[in-house]
Amino acid sequence: MIKDCDWIITQDERRRLLKKTSVLIRDGVIEDINRDLNGGDMIIAGKGKVLMPGLINTHTHISMSLLRGYAEDLPLDRWLKEKVWPIERKLTEKLCYVGALLGCLEMIRTGTTCLVDMYYHAGAIAKAVKKAGLRGFIGQGLIDTVSDDRTSDESLRESFLTAAYKTVKIIQELNDSKIKPIVAPHAPYTCSDELLMKSQVMAEEFDTLIHIHLTETRREQAMFQRNYGYSVVEYLDRIGFLNGKVLAAHCVWLTRRDIELLARRCVKISHCPISNMKLGVGGVSPIPELVESGVLITLGTDGPASNNTLDMFETMKIAALLQKHNRWDPSVINAQQILDMATVNASGSLGLGKIVGRVEKGFEADLILVDIRSPSLQPIHSSDSLIANLVYAAKGLSVDTLLVQGKPLMLKGVFQTLDEEEVYGLVEEALEELDIKPSSNS
Amino acid sequence: MIKDCDWIITQDERRRLLKKTSVLIRDGVIEDINRDLNGGDMIIAGKGKVLMPGLINTHTHISMSLLRGYAEDLPLDRWLKEKVWPIERKLTEKLCYVGALLGCLEMIRTGTTCLVDMYYHAGAIAKAVKKAGLRGFIGQGLIDTVSDDRTSDESLRESFLTAAYKTVKIIQELNDSKIKPIVAPHAPYTCSDELLMKSQVMAEEFDTLIHIHLTETRREQAMFQRNYGYSVVEYLDRIGFLNGKVLAAHCVWLTRRDIELLARRCVKISHCPISNMKLGVGGVSPIPELVESGVLITLGTDGPASNNTLDMFETMKIAALLQKHNRWDPSVINAQQILDMATVNASGSLGLGKIVGRVEKGFEADLILVDIRSPSLQPIHSSDSLIANLVYAAKGLSVDTLLVQGKPLMLKGVFQTLDEEEVYGLVEEALEELDIKPSSNS
Repeated sequence: MIKDCDWIITQDERRRLLKKTSVLIRDGVIEDINRDLNGGDMIIAGKGKVLMPGLINTHTHISMSLLRGYAEDLPLDRWLKEKVWPIERKLTEKLCYVGALLGCLEMIRTGTTCLVDMYYHAGAIAKAVKKAGLRGFIGQGLIDTVSDDRTSDESLRESFLTAAYKTVKIIQELNDSKIKPIVAPHAPYTCSDELLMKSQVMAEEFDTLIHIHLTETRREQAMFQRNYGYSVVEYLDRIGFLNGKVLAAHCVWLTRRDIELLARRCVKISHCPISNMKLGVGGVSPIPELVESGVLITLGTDGPASNNTLDMFETMKIAALLQKHNRWDPSVINAQQILDMATVNASGSLGLGKIVGRVEKGFEADLILVDIRSPSLQPIHSSDSLIANLVYAAKGLSVDTLLVQGKPLMLKGVFQTLDEEEVYGLVEEALEELDIKPSSNS
Repeated sequence: MIKDCDWIITQDERRRLLKKTSVLIRDGVIEDINRDLNGGDMIIAGKGKVLMPGLINTHTHISMSLLRGYAEDLPLDRWLKEKVWPIERKLTEKLCYVGALLGCLEMIRTGTTCLVDMYYHAGAIAKAVKKAGLRGFIGQGLIDTVSDDRTSDESLRESFLTAAYKTVKIIQELNDSKIKPIVAPHAPYTCSDELLMKSQVMAEEFDTLIHIHLTETRREQAMFQRNYGYSVVEYLDRIGFLNGKVLAAHCVWLTRRDIELLARRCVKISHCPISNMKLGVGGVSPIPELVESGVLITLGTDGPASNNTLDMFETMKIAALLQKHNRWDPSVINAQQILDMATVNASGSLGLGKIVGRVEKGFEADLILVDIRSPSLQPIHSSDSLIANLVYAAKGLSVDTLLVQGKPLMLKGVFQTLDEEEVYGLVEEALEELDIKPSSNS
């Protein structure tokens, strides 16, 4: 039972806001929402708080938390070649697990209840997500080509596919209804047509999402135009890759025709504004046109090495700022649309549209309480103003309590499933193993 | 005494970072910085914390905290004409005081020790800043024309100038060495030449800064080009307005020649990236060229009605993101440069370059402690990585303790000079007086 919340942001069909209302949770499910309620195992006080759906991060690489602040302010190619790739080669299963624990800690602290992750050693990541108690869609990144003509390296392909099948098995054996495997071909320029289509077969076999990086950089678009005479999206459509199972991250460089194709094929998008800005990819994802065409837009932080947080509140604000800035028009997108992206759109994109993303009877209780007795979140003029405060002024650190399936993972800022200091200790050991030592500069 | 800080970011000439070091403060001044120190009146534990200079916000309108979330997602002209101006006409001295208290609360919570403010009823704002214990440069906004040809309305001019002189007197009578009056002509398009030059005379008389909005919108540039055949900056230079006392906010729309002129006249700039993006002013302040020309760049949040926070950590991050994005180049600006803008550049722009902005012997103790045992701020690979974590991952809410002239205004998240709940109560009364009632939507 979450009692007497100052406000509830339901995100239901009518986007109702409720004042001074309680929520009764039983067996992880919202059983009742009303003013006068009693019962439930545990009472959580909602006074001075806003109750809302937990945020959903649809594109990240949480193990990269270990690399936060490690490579900064470099051009993209030097960032990858001199810093990120060399250290990623040293990442073991154990290190990915530790990085994932740190990422889970940050997501819990900042109001994220569900994530979509693509990385190496994805089985270990799934284990960390289970330990934390979060909801996750987790996949092993797949790569089989590093050449401009996308020639498949067969042994590379087979070893990645083997790891991917192994990951699915590990996740199935976790036997946690909140954790689902996904198939994650890295990107059109790092996967051959064979690998892309084998990913589709695998997704069909296990009935999973397909998660892929798409048109993040102009270079990728130029390469496909030059090699094939088609845009990346057109090319993927011609080989039959695009369908409603695909959740594509970034989608920065799109033509009008690409937008139409993505809409027609029911592809979902994870927009990652902070990473795009920080890496200087140049363009801006054409969100207004995508929305107009009916494409479902969700939000992602990308990995902490290019953000440098997993704070979805921050991503909501910057998503709005970037569109307003890009179109010279503050009205091009509003706070409610942004909040939808991080909640109901995201749950819909993951096939959970009737399960999470709303505070509604029968939905699972993936919920957060935000402390609004805080100087940045006062005053509240109206219900519109409350949404604006949450999107434009709240931070992840404003989150006080977080529940997944009714189970508290954080209560009043105190972690319930993970031991914060223990995780920092593991992270310190991990840095030693990676041979990144704190500087002796003093 | 602040004892055994995990790190100290000195921001001194060599930008040294010190590990496990203490700072001894006496009579508001940093007396010693060393590993083994004893003495001082009060012991503040630095374990798990970074000690750094308090951040300086060089452009804001803190009383507009009352309007946070009140007017959102509208085109600039409708935002001003339908929402902001009508409600601003209702703002009394008392309401500005209450809004300023809320703003002070937010600045203390989020790590700002010093602000530059321009608004109505500036005397009341100065009183709130004094009560809060912050450092402030505060001026009455001046306006005398609303027509495109900038014809001066003499009675308007005289009434504003009278209010400005009154404000200076109020501030002098506060007898607080931390609070200084400034002269604040609103903008070139809202001030006649006479008013601009009378502002200069007034600034000379009281030896103050001049704070002005400059080239925030393309409309302003177009208007000056059309009416006078000069850019705004060229025009201001021709009438003799530009000099080293001028701190200009925004400076979004600048030509190469404008940049040269600003550099030659030693004009200082307050860059406000969040407000610019949120209001969709279009351009991006050409920070790399300004820096190259030697113009001193500082950072401002602008008012909470167009931001919607006073969180300078957020402004640091978005300042970096916007430049990287705008130039398609992550290396165009780095974390250390951004931190400098919010500390040493800002203190320099206010004539406090030898007084605050650094953790250095003989400097006044305007300091903050940031809690780095927090999931978003781990790990710390190196000293560079620490700066990156603070600029790209810390939030105002990561601040644990804040001191101005050695006096704690917040200790471990608890306000020392202001009563948080009392301020929220006053804000609620203020909303009733403004006749903005919380929505009955439910």
